[in-house]
Amino acid sequence: KIDPDRLWDSLMEMAKIGPGVAGGNNRQTLTDEDGEGRALFQRWCEDAGCTMGLDQMGNMFARREGEDPDALPVYVGSHLDTQPTGGKYDGVLGVLGGLEIIRTLNDLGIKTRHPIVVTNFTNEEGTRYAPAMLSSGVFAGIHTQDWAYAREDTDGKKFGDELSRIGWRGDEEVGARKMRAFFELHIEQGPILEAEGKDIGVVTHGQGLSWTQVTVTGKDSHTGSTPMPMRKNAGLGMARILEKVDEIAWSHKPHAVGAAGHIDVYPNSRNVIPGKVVFTVDFRSPDLSVIEDMEARLRVEGGKIADEMGLEIEFEKVGGFDPVTFDEGCVTAVRAAAERLGYSHMNLISGAGHDACWINRVAPTAMVMCPCVDGLSHNEAEEISREWAQAGADVLMHAVVETAEV
Amino acid sequence: KIDPDRLWDSLMEMAKIGPGVAGGNNRQTLTDEDGEGRALFQRWCEDAGCTMGLDQMGNMFARREGEDPDALPVYVGSHLDTQPTGGKYDGVLGVLGGLEIIRTLNDLGIKTRHPIVVTNFTNEEGTRYAPAMLSSGVFAGIHTQDWAYAREDTDGKKFGDELSRIGWRGDEEVGARKMRAFFELHIEQGPILEAEGKDIGVVTHGQGLSWTQVTVTGKDSHTGSTPMPMRKNAGLGMARILEKVDEIAWSHKPHAVGAAGHIDVYPNSRNVIPGKVVFTVDFRSPDLSVIEDMEARLRVEGGKIADEMGLEIEFEKVGGFDPVTFDEGCVTAVRAAAERLGYSHMNLISGAGHDACWINRVAPTAMVMCPCVDGLSHNEAEEISREWAQAGADVLMHAVVETAEV
Ligand SMILES: NC(=O)NCCC(=O)O
Ligand SMILES: NC(=O)NCCC(=O)O
Repeated sequence: KIDPDRLWDSLMEMAKIGPGVAGGNNRQTLTDEDGEGRALFQRWCEDAGCTMGLDQMGNMFARREGEDPDALPVYVGSHLDTQPTGGKYDGVLGVLGGLEIIRTLNDLGIKTRHPIVVTNFTNEEGTRYAPAMLSSGVFAGIHTQDWAYAREDTDGKKFGDELSRIGWRGDEEVGARKMRAFFELHIEQGPILEAEGKDIGVVTHGQGLSWTQVTVTGKDSHTGSTPMPMRKNAGLGMARILEKVDEIAWSHKPHAVGAAGHIDVYPNSRNVIPGKVVFTVDFRSPDLSVIEDMEARLRVEGGKIADEMGLEIEFEKVGGFDPVTFDEGCVTAVRAAAERLGYSHMNLISGAGHDACWINRVAPTAMVMCPCVDGLSHNEAEEISREWAQAGADVLMHAVVETAEV
Repeated sequence: KIDPDRLWDSLMEMAKIGPGVAGGNNRQTLTDEDGEGRALFQRWCEDAGCTMGLDQMGNMFARREGEDPDALPVYVGSHLDTQPTGGKYDGVLGVLGGLEIIRTLNDLGIKTRHPIVVTNFTNEEGTRYAPAMLSSGVFAGIHTQDWAYAREDTDGKKFGDELSRIGWRGDEEVGARKMRAFFELHIEQGPILEAEGKDIGVVTHGQGLSWTQVTVTGKDSHTGSTPMPMRKNAGLGMARILEKVDEIAWSHKPHAVGAAGHIDVYPNSRNVIPGKVVFTVDFRSPDLSVIEDMEARLRVEGGKIADEMGLEIEFEKVGGFDPVTFDEGCVTAVRAAAERLGYSHMNLISGAGHDACWINRVAPTAMVMCPCVDGLSHNEAEEISREWAQAGADVLMHAVVETAEV
């Protein structure tokens, strides 16, 4: 069993880097704080006897040697970057849970046949650079590295340049590594485990996602002296489309969801009718045909609303992945570990996207989830108990060690 | 008659300071560019033999002496600050039109009994610091100077500090000056004069305004893993309120208008349901009871929408003025000037707020308007013809000179 206090202390130590404004974190990808978090993780890994690999996307790979150094390693990990107003556990638990496995195996003097590698994937959150899970996506061959490097944040700063700037652009070719398996521990970010009173979610599937960036263009003009019939109010167009997004998501009960988290209004002046609004619609469902239907309806209904109002509208897909079915063998290993350790468990569909969703394309993959308070995540108040973290890391360790063979 | 080419050249010269991205201007109040614009105006005024006064709000007063230096001066002017994506004429025409009067009187060797003072009021636009017409408002005793100094922009920079920083905080007590009359020349910013084919708008009234800042608070949480029934989506709440704002404005035909130009979404991340949205609703009408009705309905209907969605809502009035009736004598002077010069004219109600609306509280005031292309303003493409500018400045000069007595 892992050491829950050591794991917790490490979580709290990491949370000191890039503190938020309300008890959580703002350690967005490729910021100085991200660099600091990486340096701390590297130091901890080296203290635990690992050697660190770094690829050209900034993905970090801390390797604990196996008895057979030529055997394919078992990978474990998640991400250290956070939302702008994020929690202390989203991603971090998976990375530091992986490190805790290494530390525990060291303490117990256990050697596995296969090496174990703890990863930190760059830009999982997708706030600063769309899409989310960008670097695991490049690793899995979904995106090209050049395309990823050219992604821009709202200040026009490119991903590739910022990666170099913080000093974490490695030499290793991205995706060259072969994995025996990949396991990711993550907080649920939803309410189900807590409601059902279960310690562990055995993640069998991940729902799919579609991100459509919508640009509505009207005409910026004076809010006082432009008569109502002459207005081309892009802000009102956006409002009508948001209502439609909600209606579309509700029409696919019980599982589909839809909302816009990102909305930029131009020129954003109190007495100027918005001439342009750019916003991103996030639709998700475990069912690919539902996602496709929602995306198509957004384009049709959004187009109609714009037409009626004399507005221009453009749609650009800025992120997406199909629903995922995780590897049967890995899923079974997670369930068996929970069973063996006496933790209550249930099958789960992940509501969020995870690096595991992409890695699943190139290696047998599964996820372990633990509850979080009120299902709340992407919020500084995100919270978990020490016991939940412990259960998750224990199950993770047993699944990994079984796969890595003692 | 004024010199239309000199006026036009000055307009174009000023427009070089704080150029926009699409042919217009971004010379927002209390920026370095505002400082540069002020310096140029001061130089021009001094070249024309005026002495410059500067009050503690940064309001500028260029005085051409009268034959009777003790006679109350006639004031004329407007503002040099612009919207973030503003035009070259909004405000600027009124200031440089005033300067053109001085230059013309100098050329013709005409002395008036009353001094003439050309003003540039600070922060008319109200984008960086709400409310609009802030400094003419302090001049007229509507706001206290301390309150104005404490206004903050979105970066938390205070008005008073920024005024000092750009070096335009004067010593003169604000509002100490007494005026014989105040005349403001401005582009219409609406479509009526052009549609009616008139050279000059004789502004008899100004419609009133109400700015209500609305803060909708929900709960930021994950767009993927938060089930639809658990969401507290402040963005969707904002959308529903914007639809209501539009409905409320349309319900008072033909004159009332309503929209939100300013919308800030927090944390503004693609995969976070908005936890908070702050936006400003701008309602206007020439009828005070209509404004009061719209404002009250916004609070009631907005409150209902928030309640139904489990959101918190707060309303703060961040700007407003009652409908204005300009001074009969000054209005008559404007109409008589247009008549005498042979320009076609019609009565107008100003759709926008102007410094004249506040100065009207402390001095006999009127406005002269000239058309602008397609009624478009608060847009970089704002355009007027040289002839329209000329007609406006001619009428302004005749009204001013008549009031200042030759
Ligand atoms: N786990 C997580 O929050 N990932 C970010 C990508 C997503 O929006 O699902
Ligand atoms: N003239 C003008 O655009 N003034 C700004 C204040 C307003 O919004 O009416």
